[in-house]
Amino acid sequence: MTATDPIANLAALIRCPSVTPAEGGALTALEALLGPLGFQLDRIRSTTPGTPDIDNLYARHGTQGPHLMFAGHTDVVPPGDTDLWRFPPFSAEIADGMMHGRGAVDMKGGIACFVAAIARLFARGVRLPGSVSLLITGDEEGPAINGTPKLLDWAVARGEHWDACLVGEPTNPDVLGDMIKIGRRGSLSGIVTVTGVQGHAAYPHLADNPVRGILALARALMDPPLDAGTQDFQPTNLEVTSIDVGNPATNVIPASATARFNVRFNDIWTADTLKAELTRRLDEAARDEALRPGRAPVRYSMTFAERPSHVFLTRNDRLISTLSAAVQGVTGRTPQLSTTGGTSDARFIKDHCPVVEFGLVGQTMHMVDERVALADLETLTQIYERFVEDWFADAAA
Amino acid sequence: MTATDPIANLAALIRCPSVTPAEGGALTALEALLGPLGFQLDRIRSTTPGTPDIDNLYARHGTQGPHLMFAGHTDVVPPGDTDLWRFPPFSAEIADGMMHGRGAVDMKGGIACFVAAIARLFARGVRLPGSVSLLITGDEEGPAINGTPKLLDWAVARGEHWDACLVGEPTNPDVLGDMIKIGRRGSLSGIVTVTGVQGHAAYPHLADNPVRGILALARALMDPPLDAGTQDFQPTNLEVTSIDVGNPATNVIPASATARFNVRFNDIWTADTLKAELTRRLDEAARDEALRPGRAPVRYSMTFAERPSHVFLTRNDRLISTLSAAVQGVTGRTPQLSTTGGTSDARFIKDHCPVVEFGLVGQTMHMVDERVALADLETLTQIYERFVEDWFADAAA
Repeated sequence: MTATDPIANLAALIRCPSVTPAEGGALTALEALLGPLGFQLDRIRSTTPGTPDIDNLYARHGTQGPHLMFAGHTDVVPPGDTDLWRFPPFSAEIADGMMHGRGAVDMKGGIACFVAAIARLFARGVRLPGSVSLLITGDEEGPAINGTPKLLDWAVARGEHWDACLVGEPTNPDVLGDMIKIGRRGSLSGIVTVTGVQGHAAYPHLADNPVRGILALARALMDPPLDAGTQDFQPTNLEVTSIDVGNPATNVIPASATARFNVRFNDIWTADTLKAELTRRLDEAARDEALRPGRAPVRYSMTFAERPSHVFLTRNDRLISTLSAAVQGVTGRTPQLSTTGGTSDARFIKDHCPVVEFGLVGQTMHMVDERVALADLETLTQIYERFVEDWFADAAA
Repeated sequence: MTATDPIANLAALIRCPSVTPAEGGALTALEALLGPLGFQLDRIRSTTPGTPDIDNLYARHGTQGPHLMFAGHTDVVPPGDTDLWRFPPFSAEIADGMMHGRGAVDMKGGIACFVAAIARLFARGVRLPGSVSLLITGDEEGPAINGTPKLLDWAVARGEHWDACLVGEPTNPDVLGDMIKIGRRGSLSGIVTVTGVQGHAAYPHLADNPVRGILALARALMDPPLDAGTQDFQPTNLEVTSIDVGNPATNVIPASATARFNVRFNDIWTADTLKAELTRRLDEAARDEALRPGRAPVRYSMTFAERPSHVFLTRNDRLISTLSAAVQGVTGRTPQLSTTGGTSDARFIKDHCPVVEFGLVGQTMHMVDERVALADLETLTQIYERFVEDWFADAAA
């Protein structure tokens, strides 16, 4: 039977140079694997003025419920300086028991294993009592505007409905079986600008140095901590990621100063309550600064980036336990149920059905010499195969 | 007699476009005024690798002591967008009782008045019982490397010695007669760099955000005040003039952050004691930051700009009172004895003789439509004339 070997599947995908926003042949290669398995294939090209067009793929097998979705992306981050790589980054070279290439773990490897798992089920003659779909975007590593959100909109508009979703992102810090992601923190970015009055450094009373204001406001953003964390989530964390004035003249007091920040927030907050708290902190700090001798009130503005990533937490215990049991059954390891790390496209899918994430070991993702152990590809294929079979058994029960 | 009209003298100087480092004909025009008055003229061209060559002028009348120096500069700052000027900036156009042009008050005007004052003394048949010199640089508005310091070195090497110096910079804030400068604060600039560990904003425990460190150190530089001032000087003041990270990626914690600062310091400090205090403050702040929960010690480096401007205060009461009396006698105003404002070339001359500063009203200096009242040129000429005559009378007494 075709497509049962995750190593062959992954090699075919890595050899397509699908650096965001390029499709690079990767979706076509995936179609070549899924078509013979009986999937109905829909290529959806999404366009938004001012952003590159993106190719996406929706592949469904079956017409009835229950309906399990596997979500992922074939686009990859750029390889950087290819001279630094041991092997060309799109060659899928095997050495020392590892397949090398951009996307090996993030996340063409996850897709290759899921396809192999389905192929093996079918090869064993299993008939799934429902539908299984792959929702694959080419815009996860980019702005994600023409990727998963538009693909979901398209699918819902034609009547698609899902009961659960497995995202195949690399979730394991060190060893396959370490960690399942059952939620993700939200992410909110913003910029604070303090306006002062430019002047000569020798005549500070005629000027108003915005550096004093930005120091006070940046500190108020970071201290005290926003919360102490919850049972499910780490503490909310804010990092001021840049402060910039850009004044090269040492004898000039500058006219303005900016601070950029990013917050990773847990389910104590929504993006809106968080914005309100940050605004409250800045107003307070601006007032406090004005109370200090010789200081003027701090004049500032704050703008937030559009489209914050919302926090989510999956409460579907059966979905989580089915996946955990599959991981444990194949690896012997009890995976940690975690909400750590960055955002993923699961933040969009959670509005449609319960979603969990499990994939390969993430250690080399986005790095030079990204690579995956061939043994891990086999193990993950077995985990996915068991999970799919058990999930349909549970759903039918 | 030639050169007795400050208006004509100034027009000749303004018409030379002597934007630093260009001589622009200004020193040659000045020589044409001084030569007929019997001054011995020396043009000194100073060169330093990596900086533009600069023309300077030393003009002496007389061979014996006592010896009075007048110091100034013929170079001017750039006019900027000449379309914004009411008249071309090197045209010396007269309108509404004002002469317009770059350098009108800073400080070709002061030179024009001093030359007219000497010419009038000579026209009255006054024979000065000593020597009067003009030490005129073409590099006051630039880095000052090839200007006054080199000119002083040259003059000292050939045996010149002075008993007092008058600097003709614009010293009056609003009205001629407002203010004599009897000293200047020092100026010290530096850069602090905090080194952190770059990382992903979602994994702050794997990174070390240098923004936290730069906030703590920048605040420690500015607070508390370095002193409360002295009888003669304003409080020492430090301004952080720029903070820069330059990190455009909101999901990345940056690797380093810098703060630039400038201190204007009074005679409580020397550049060296000030450097020691700032280093002590940063060390203390770096240690305090390490005591906060979850914080690493701040790793930082600080470098100071070469050639700080040293503080000075003139203690020669007779020089000050002679100048004050001349101002009061001509204008009826009692000038304030001040040490405020920026630095001037007096900081170099103070090592050779007592130095005071008095010139025109500074309001339009460095601005579009720099201009001087024709009445002020006449008044300043009279003040200079009286000061020179009285100073020699005092010195001979």
